[in-house]
Amino acid sequence: MPTFALPEAAAWRLIDVPMRADERGLLGVVEAVPGVPFDMRRVFFVTRVAEGCRRGAHAHRTLRQLLVCVSGQVEVVLDDGNRREQITLDGPARALYIPPMTWATQESKAPDTTYLVLADQPYDEGDYIRNYDDFLAAARA
Amino acid sequence: MPTFALPEAAAWRLIDVPMRADERGLLGVVEAVPGVPFDMRRVFFVTRVAEGCRRGAHAHRTLRQLLVCVSGQVEVVLDDGNRREQITLDGPARALYIPPMTWATQESKAPDTTYLVLADQPYDEGDYIRNYDDFLAAARA
Repeated sequence: MPTFALPEAAAWRLIDVPMRADERGLLGVVEAVPGVPFDMRRVFFVTRVAEGCRRGAHAHRTLRQLLVCVSGQVEVVLDDGNRREQITLDGPARALYIPPMTWATQESKAPDTTYLVLADQPYDEGDYIRNYDDFLAAARA
Repeated sequence: MPTFALPEAAAWRLIDVPMRADERGLLGVVEAVPGVPFDMRRVFFVTRVAEGCRRGAHAHRTLRQLLVCVSGQVEVVLDDGNRREQITLDGPARALYIPPMTWATQESKAPDTTYLVLADQPYDEGDYIRNYDDFLAAARA
């Protein structure tokens, strides 16, 4: 199975996740390639999200994240202070890389949505920017 | 939120996963604590698993894994060559640590099961033992 190179890019982007489907179900793999400096230090998953529910609405100063919609559908609004884009993930085959200094909001668009987030650092409250005006000031500085 | 210490234990065991539930859904976090030598080098997820489907049926020589049942229900049969145990995971709040040299088989027990596996090494075909007799010989050596 091909390995999975985590990007260094400054902008958000979609990344193909190697998937294998057979009669037993669907298998997807996210793997840190040795030498690529994205250590998966933290994995969180959000499940049983009712349609229309919104999460996120914050940015991280340095954290890099990869969001994988395992089931259902999640609409992500991304904002770097200058540009805003909406990306819908409706399956696990394409993951969304979210770079640092990106204001992101996730909204569930299906009755039972589950998504994973892989992050390259442990939890650190100091890395969060939870106020949008503060974010804009920092992003444009 | 409490952090999550990955075990050094030789035997399989269940581990509590910090969960936070609110009106937006259910959030679970698996985090490598700095200093604990379980690097998450690989994450795979299995989804859209029909009831009764079986996966696994192999062992790893050195790989350590943590299995989280995000939705549905998965029955895991674990075997170290001397002892066999069946453990059912029916939600994400308890994860199953699977140490090296454990023959493990997963069977879906609900119509739509999704589970994650976090592993401490990249994919390496040489680490798999796919024949049960070979496993028994190695485990009892």
